[in-house]
Amino acid sequence: MYIEKIKSPADIKGLGIKELKTVCDEVRNAVLNRVSKHGGHVGPNLGFVEATVALHYVFNAHKDKFVFDVSHQCYPHKVLTGRASGFLGDVDDMNAISGYSSPAESPMYDNFEVGHTSTSISLATGLQKARDVKGGDENIIAIIGDGSLSGGEAYEGLNEASELGTGIIIIVNDNEMSIAENHGGLYKNLALLRSTQGKAECNIFKALGFDYKYLEEGNDVEKLIALFSSVKGADKPTVLHIHTEKGHGFAPATENKEAWHWGMPFDVNTGAPLVERYGSESYEQLFSEFMLSEMKKDPTLIAVTAGTPAAAGFSKSKRLEAGAQHLDMGIAEEQACAMSSGMAKGGLRPVWTVYSTFIQRTYDQIAQDLCINSNPAVINVMWGGCGTMNDITHICLFDIPMLCSIPNLLYLAPATCEEYFAMLRWAIRQDMKPVAIRVPSNGVNHASESVDEEYGYEPAYKITRQGSSVAIIAAGSFYQKGEKVVELLYQQGINATLINPRYLSALDTKTLDALKADHSLVVTLEDGCKDGGFGERIAAYYGTSDMKVLVGGIKKDLYDRFDQQQLLSDNRLLDEQIVEDVLGLL
Amino acid sequence: MYIEKIKSPADIKGLGIKELKTVCDEVRNAVLNRVSKHGGHVGPNLGFVEATVALHYVFNAHKDKFVFDVSHQCYPHKVLTGRASGFLGDVDDMNAISGYSSPAESPMYDNFEVGHTSTSISLATGLQKARDVKGGDENIIAIIGDGSLSGGEAYEGLNEASELGTGIIIIVNDNEMSIAENHGGLYKNLALLRSTQGKAECNIFKALGFDYKYLEEGNDVEKLIALFSSVKGADKPTVLHIHTEKGHGFAPATENKEAWHWGMPFDVNTGAPLVERYGSESYEQLFSEFMLSEMKKDPTLIAVTAGTPAAAGFSKSKRLEAGAQHLDMGIAEEQACAMSSGMAKGGLRPVWTVYSTFIQRTYDQIAQDLCINSNPAVINVMWGGCGTMNDITHICLFDIPMLCSIPNLLYLAPATCEEYFAMLRWAIRQDMKPVAIRVPSNGVNHASESVDEEYGYEPAYKITRQGSSVAIIAAGSFYQKGEKVVELLYQQGINATLINPRYLSALDTKTLDALKADHSLVVTLEDGCKDGGFGERIAAYYGTSDMKVLVGGIKKDLYDRFDQQQLLSDNRLLDEQIVEDVLGLL
Repeated sequence: MYIEKIKSPADIKGLGIKELKTVCDEVRNAVLNRVSKHGGHVGPNLGFVEATVALHYVFNAHKDKFVFDVSHQCYPHKVLTGRASGFLGDVDDMNAISGYSSPAESPMYDNFEVGHTSTSISLATGLQKARDVKGGDENIIAIIGDGSLSGGEAYEGLNEASELGTGIIIIVNDNEMSIAENHGGLYKNLALLRSTQGKAECNIFKALGFDYKYLEEGNDVEKLIALFSSVKGADKPTVLHIHTEKGHGFAPATENKEAWHWGMPFDVNTGAPLVERYGSESYEQLFSEFMLSEMKKDPTLIAVTAGTPAAAGFSKSKRLEAGAQHLDMGIAEEQACAMSSGMAKGGLRPVWTVYSTFIQRTYDQIAQDLCINSNPAVINVMWGGCGTMNDITHICLFDIPMLCSIPNLLYLAPATCEEYFAMLRWAIRQDMKPVAIRVPSNGVNHASESVDEEYGYEPAYKITRQGSSVAIIAAGSFYQKGEKVVELLYQQGINATLINPRYLSALDTKTLDALKADHSLVVTLEDGCKDGGFGERIAAYYGTSDMKVLVGGIKKDLYDRFDQQQLLSDNRLLDEQIVEDVLGLL
Repeated sequence: MYIEKIKSPADIKGLGIKELKTVCDEVRNAVLNRVSKHGGHVGPNLGFVEATVALHYVFNAHKDKFVFDVSHQCYPHKVLTGRASGFLGDVDDMNAISGYSSPAESPMYDNFEVGHTSTSISLATGLQKARDVKGGDENIIAIIGDGSLSGGEAYEGLNEASELGTGIIIIVNDNEMSIAENHGGLYKNLALLRSTQGKAECNIFKALGFDYKYLEEGNDVEKLIALFSSVKGADKPTVLHIHTEKGHGFAPATENKEAWHWGMPFDVNTGAPLVERYGSESYEQLFSEFMLSEMKKDPTLIAVTAGTPAAAGFSKSKRLEAGAQHLDMGIAEEQACAMSSGMAKGGLRPVWTVYSTFIQRTYDQIAQDLCINSNPAVINVMWGGCGTMNDITHICLFDIPMLCSIPNLLYLAPATCEEYFAMLRWAIRQDMKPVAIRVPSNGVNHASESVDEEYGYEPAYKITRQGSSVAIIAAGSFYQKGEKVVELLYQQGINATLINPRYLSALDTKTLDALKADHSLVVTLEDGCKDGGFGERIAAYYGTSDMKVLVGGIKKDLYDRFDQQQLLSDNRLLDEQIVEDVLGLL
């Protein structure tokens, strides 16, 4: 074992090729050990083991700057930069090391916190310019997968790297896959370059002004070392296009690359999952089944994704079933939004499904391309709330403040499964406005009573329990919390009103006004950042009245790998805390 | 005169080449007539006259769909589609026709409201898909300038248009200019293609999978007709790269292309401006002078723009003076933000200046690339408020809700010129956090008292006048409004407190708590959208107390070419209205 002795990249500098190959095997096993026990990104990390060893052999981090795109391929780098414990240790050790590039974790070797795609080249150009201004001679190296190259920011970065004209090395890690398969004209060129061993004249990187080298054997550490050595210290913008195998060295991952992009813990010998990926029901599954069923009746219904078909439950077989009614843009949320607007304008019924954390990649397109044009596309927002992703780069708390500040967007928050599908059916059917729906993220809860089938552009809250004195307005994924709070209050002798607001983007002032008659306190509950969110707007509406308002939500802040219960507690959002606060205010 | 008889594009179908050339001359004169009297986009429209006439001659709008990028070249199209009155009539007629593509104005001929760049191809792919699904045979035509091609959304659109693989025609209107000069690797390829008459093998459009044709004589209506006719009905994604002259046919505009991209009214014979572009002082001028002076002392200070150097007062001569300390990304806000983060990480002091309306093009990069990484870049936000741009696509009211919902961003709002520069100096000097500054947009007001030189990460409001009973918290560009309201209240016998909050992104709870002692009403004033903004957060903070809060700001809505005084009045933001409301609440 070399790996346990590697405390920094300097420790591999003296090794020969045979020993480096052993290091590669050990790094691969370390990665597999982590992902099989802890879960994480499997395929992209396995495919980048040899390149990482070669990078650290040839270059001198931390003087030389590595910038990893989206961090899906940074595990081998972590193993070699003092963080092997996160791969070889127990689950606590693993939890201590994040799955993403993180200067908070390793200021020496990680340059940026990164978890969204297509940012590496842009970030690296900043380091390139800084080096040029300060007269340094370090190598600046951006590492980007072919899948991440579909995002517009990557293209903007390529343009600027070329414009600067000085040394920057961009490693295009081409494993012929995005998270799912690749989509976009770019991939025709990458295929041409692979098939010609990089010799085709028509080359997007050369067109953009880069020196370019191709390596077919992207999992051959010796050849990678030769390639990297040949450009070390290069004083021109340079693209190294290396052809790697996603999941390299682990048969289940190479056989089903999409399923093994990211995974929960599994048996490292067989690949069999150790936990069920989904419970008995999931919105991903229900949504995709609903869409496939509706698509058969309506050829104009189109399911849209920007590189994350799994967010909508569209597995490969379901995509095949949907055929041309499923559109994957690659990782290109701006395109997904603008094209959905165009499709709606053209008479189609697009439903774009996107994780809460990624919707912020397309603010301007939602505002300009979609909402100013009032085209009736539907945005299906997944995982909004504090019970989903919890890495600092993947927080899902900001969709309410963002979407509710964009004029002419209706943002709905269903409280139950039945309400969600009723809203979705209505949103698809109506043809006046863009509608976003915040899919509940607290499991599939079924309605105990009938839900409305018709919705509208004027908000209409639903009073689900009429009480007095205090009203709980509990939105979306926090509606069930509202039910529990009302129940607990009842046990304390308080007969509270419970309201399912259903509409997040504007206030039902009629209902709010009516509450003034026999209520003195309104409590708002939303599963998201409260700063700029839903409840503050209600507080402002009541600002000049005698109504007291307690806004319940999560304080704006950076959060990293938080514990959900702790986060709720810190924000006084546990059921009993809310009850305590209400009692204190009555 | 043909032009006055052209009620729809059908009216030019029967004309011969000689007559079409006359139509071109007349359209050019009509464009010049409007821009010289009304102001607007000069150069890009003049350069696209012949192409527009040829487009309408060859294709059949509205069956065929034209999608104009950013709308900077849509005036000739408006002249030919029933809107000549906006070019030939009086100023009222001109005001009735917007400067942008607008289906609200012409549902027959305009497909999208468009004013931000790089969106046309993405929007057009939606129409392309709709046509394919519905089995239509219309031509889908996106019209995009070379300058707009720098934006990532355009690249994402190219990728998808190619992926769809069916007919779409993308006209690249290459006038060798963005708003200012072009920047980015792409422009090396466009130059190569121009110099080889489109014959170079290394061709980004071919690399992305397009059929490609080049036309050198992009202002020759006959050759344009031949080119467009050759691809009419094409069933493959096709790029037509036409070389035009920005400002064609108007000598002042061809001689100084940047100055004539957009302009205020001018003498059509000489090009001399009819009104002064700036008053005696402007923040653009003051900022650029400050930066140039500081740059000489500090080589790490970098002025950044995404294609709009004028927003920061960086004229061509000032850019030359700044040299490598001025960076223009082209129209690529995501790159500007992410690279600024990288530069700050690398030890530089980037200050990125951006108009309020365009900052929403880079939400994710501000949140992820910049704020999660806590790199000390400075964002200089221009024109935020209701006194600047007023076209529906250029509203500057949403930067406060957006930026104040992003964790770890400090957003400052200076009330005066002196305070602005004090904040700017501090923001550049500090090295802990990203700082955005909302430059006042109500003219250059000078401070009557000294301002603080030091700021911090914890908000500290400044009480500028101590009164009691009612406190006016008046932010940034509305601070002077707060002064007037306090004065009017004093005339009514009310001695109000006036507060300059200075910090928008978090609350100074100490000051807010202290107000409870001898105030019963707080009025917040902000020059922006109040939904999700500054005041609502204060209302929520006081929600469970006895303090009443009146939130003053502009209601979230779509606005188009609004009258500022009317907008203020509609939102009860005129000084006397605020006083009236305060009196009603006391």
